[in-house]
Amino acid sequence: MKRTLQEISDAVGASLRGDGSILVGAVASIAGAGPEDLVFVEDEKHLSAALESRAGAVIARAFAADMSCKPVMLSDHPKLAFARAARFLRAGSIRDGAHSLAHETAVVDRSATLAAGVLVEEFAVVRGSVSIGENTRIGASTFVGAGVKIGRDSIIYPRVTIYPGTTIGDRVIVHAGAVLGSDGFGYVRDPENGRYEKFPQVGRLVIEDDVEIGANTTIDRGALDETRIGRGAKLDNLVHIGHNCLLGENVVIAAQTGLSGSIVIENDVVLGGQVGIGEHARVEEGVMLGGQGGILPNKVLRGKGVVFWGTPAQPVRQYLKQLAALARLSRKEKK
Amino acid sequence: MKRTLQEISDAVGASLRGDGSILVGAVASIAGAGPEDLVFVEDEKHLSAALESRAGAVIARAFAADMSCKPVMLSDHPKLAFARAARFLRAGSIRDGAHSLAHETAVVDRSATLAAGVLVEEFAVVRGSVSIGENTRIGASTFVGAGVKIGRDSIIYPRVTIYPGTTIGDRVIVHAGAVLGSDGFGYVRDPENGRYEKFPQVGRLVIEDDVEIGANTTIDRGALDETRIGRGAKLDNLVHIGHNCLLGENVVIAAQTGLSGSIVIENDVVLGGQVGIGEHARVEEGVMLGGQGGILPNKVLRGKGVVFWGTPAQPVRQYLKQLAALARLSRKEKK
Amino acid sequence: MKRTLQEISDAVGASLRGDGSILVGAVASIAGAGPEDLVFVEDEKHLSAALESRAGAVIARAFAADMSCKPVMLSDHPKLAFARAARFLRAGSIRDGAHSLAHETAVVDRSATLAAGVLVEEFAVVRGSVSIGENTRIGASTFVGAGVKIGRDSIIYPRVTIYPGTTIGDRVIVHAGAVLGSDGFGYVRDPENGRYEKFPQVGRLVIEDDVEIGANTTIDRGALDETRIGRGAKLDNLVHIGHNCLLGENVVIAAQTGLSGSIVIENDVVLGGQVGIGEHARVEEGVMLGGQGGILPNKVLRGKGVVFWGTPAQPVRQYLKQLAALARLSRKEKK
Repeated sequence: MKRTLQEISDAVGASLRGDGSILVGAVASIAGAGPEDLVFVEDEKHLSAALESRAGAVIARAFAADMSCKPVMLSDHPKLAFARAARFLRAGSIRDGAHSLAHETAVVDRSATLAAGVLVEEFAVVRGSVSIGENTRIGASTFVGAGVKIGRDSIIYPRVTIYPGTTIGDRVIVHAGAVLGSDGFGYVRDPENGRYEKFPQVGRLVIEDDVEIGANTTIDRGALDETRIGRGAKLDNLVHIGHNCLLGENVVIAAQTGLSGSIVIENDVVLGGQVGIGEHARVEEGVMLGGQGGILPNKVLRGKGVVFWGTPAQPVRQYLKQLAALARLSRKEKK
Repeated sequence: MKRTLQEISDAVGASLRGDGSILVGAVASIAGAGPEDLVFVEDEKHLSAALESRAGAVIARAFAADMSCKPVMLSDHPKLAFARAARFLRAGSIRDGAHSLAHETAVVDRSATLAAGVLVEEFAVVRGSVSIGENTRIGASTFVGAGVKIGRDSIIYPRVTIYPGTTIGDRVIVHAGAVLGSDGFGYVRDPENGRYEKFPQVGRLVIEDDVEIGANTTIDRGALDETRIGRGAKLDNLVHIGHNCLLGENVVIAAQTGLSGSIVIENDVVLGGQVGIGEHARVEEGVMLGGQGGILPNKVLRGKGVVFWGTPAQPVRQYLKQLAALARLSRKEKK
Repeated sequence: MKRTLQEISDAVGASLRGDGSILVGAVASIAGAGPEDLVFVEDEKHLSAALESRAGAVIARAFAADMSCKPVMLSDHPKLAFARAARFLRAGSIRDGAHSLAHETAVVDRSATLAAGVLVEEFAVVRGSVSIGENTRIGASTFVGAGVKIGRDSIIYPRVTIYPGTTIGDRVIVHAGAVLGSDGFGYVRDPENGRYEKFPQVGRLVIEDDVEIGANTTIDRGALDETRIGRGAKLDNLVHIGHNCLLGENVVIAAQTGLSGSIVIENDVVLGGQVGIGEHARVEEGVMLGGQGGILPNKVLRGKGVVFWGTPAQPVRQYLKQLAALARLSRKEKK
């Protein structure tokens, strides 16, 4: 849906210079932009390229205030304003206020409750006692198990599996192939015959508001209690979260990272890709752990803004010193 | 389904103290238990919390023999007895003896054989010459390729893909999104043009009895012969098993571990999460390899009960000594 | 479909010794072959086993020229000839020239274009403005988003998700559970409240001809521009490719390897399993990186045919020397 530059400027909190009646419909890169696209510039050195592009308007910082060849939206945080503008332009396509609509091929149990604006796509299965909030979309071939609750304005992409009893908040995005609420990995070995007896996995999974979950990511339910993904957490593709993990708010986890069971990740933690964390470990508020890093079971990582790296994870400066010391040792031996 | 404490005690081989006529219907954690729930205590220090909880009964060792405020089931292995009790309580909900039932939306080929008690859920596809044993459940949107054989009392969760010709045993559990029997990763480079010609992947996959396979795990078929997952193996989520791997009995593999081709994993091996193993390697009986460990191609890891760690994998004590030596070297250089 | 040895020899460019009228229908391993199977031998020491097997014919190098107990196809590259023979035998089962056929349960939008020979299986969804080339197969429960283009002779296995706007070339194979064109992982943090605003992910994904993509692999679309997988690239299972990555031709990536955003992988690069690469890194033509290796953000790896290993990735000889130096240091300290 197209919007005027003035509408967009107001929506994102920018200050407009130029013709506010011009319509734009999308965001784009500088190289790919057309006349109805919006672009942004973080760094002044890219400003001339943006102004010379085919874009309809540019979001930039104060350094662009005096440019007049194109409309400019001034913001202290151009990239943030650009992201907000993209959301504002997307919002026009939401089915707000419409009746709920299930495709004729979808199988929705009679006891499920679909709020206004809900869309259930082809071959989706919605089992008994499910409740789905306003404007939420359930993608094609997605499975929503009995008793699941999903909030409003959420997008569940095609081919997601949501095990029974899982709770999902508002404005949550779940990408294709994700599996939410599957059994945790827990067994008890029988000392007599060496076989593994399955430990019950009858807890649940709670995903709070504003979480985004990547494609083919898997999150297990609690064994007896719950697994919880805190508000605003962002999980990339192919991430694994084991049973009984508790993630705080605004946690960021890059692709292919794995958490085994009963781990606590506090608010504002950032985990790189392919990180592995052992059971019962704790990562305290604001810690950052670089890609492929590892934390041993029961360990605690602490320090707001401290960057860790390696396995076992250490402060990055210490880790780099060790790498350098090893390289010197190896060179010295060669002589 | 609810059962009396006496029935449960008998089923799990515990010795009951207290009123055997009390009904319980589920297992729970001490914190979350209600009056119809069963809890367990491994460590005496948690006994008072269990007795003071709302739980209907407690499973514990002999240290709880003289408690009278609640019924107690005595067992030398409380956690194992608790896991068995959970299985016993679940068992009441199985469709034993009923006719097979395919949801009206499922597409089941006429040449497929479904035994008594089989349940085929919404949008499942069951192709020609498939045979499915008693009481096995095929989840919604699961695909069962031509010629697949699945044993009895197995649970295939929604959205699993089983490639043609795969064989699955009894009491197997396959979680959502798993892919079983896909093509292995094998190519032959054409020296003239540098392109890769696909090597045929026409073998098969055999999964023996009592195996559990995690969500979104992938197991490739053999190239010309077979890939085999031995009886009682437990694979976590997002695990990858390459073509022609042979896994023994009671093997445990944690999340995101990957085996490339033609690897032998003998009985009772335990692999931590994110382990990587190169082609033609062999891990002998009873070896344990810690998380993120790596084994080079063609290598053999040997030693019942020996714990290995690191890449290349070494006995854990040796690996820890090297880490300590490196830390000391780095500190010394700093001075 | 069965073919004569003469037909196969001609098709793969081998030189036949023996009865060219014999029919074979499949390829097999020496141990598993029957009289209508073809086997191959790379190494002369396996020749007698091949000749004594039940196979109908053997592909081998010149060392087999004088054998007369079985028909022999001589080739300088027996494994390559064998792979080509397998392809030639498979080709007989393609629906070339037939009308396109969509299963009665599939939902195909009226504006979609299906060329001759296209097969759309059970519960597949094909949205508006999709175009699918000749003889391409769309597997059961696969989702093809609006505007997707797929070339000819491609196989999309069951339960694949293709996000809107993705382009896929000719002779592409996509295994079950793969997710193509999902949103990249990009956010802008709001300095006022610490929350993450989603950066727009509105670019696209292009997959060129002759690519094969493994089960449950995920490839993100570009944020604003494109992600591209070059001609002939082979990706194993559970691989992750982030937004805006550009892969060259004949790139090989083993299982569970992950590329974060905006990475360039040039032609003929080989990445082992569980490799992790940081954003904006570049791997130049012909580099090989061993399993579990890691490349830091913004780094460049260079050297045709050079093998790298470790994190951060180093030439393998240098890395092995460091491992050896560390082992010696540790042993010395022990004394």
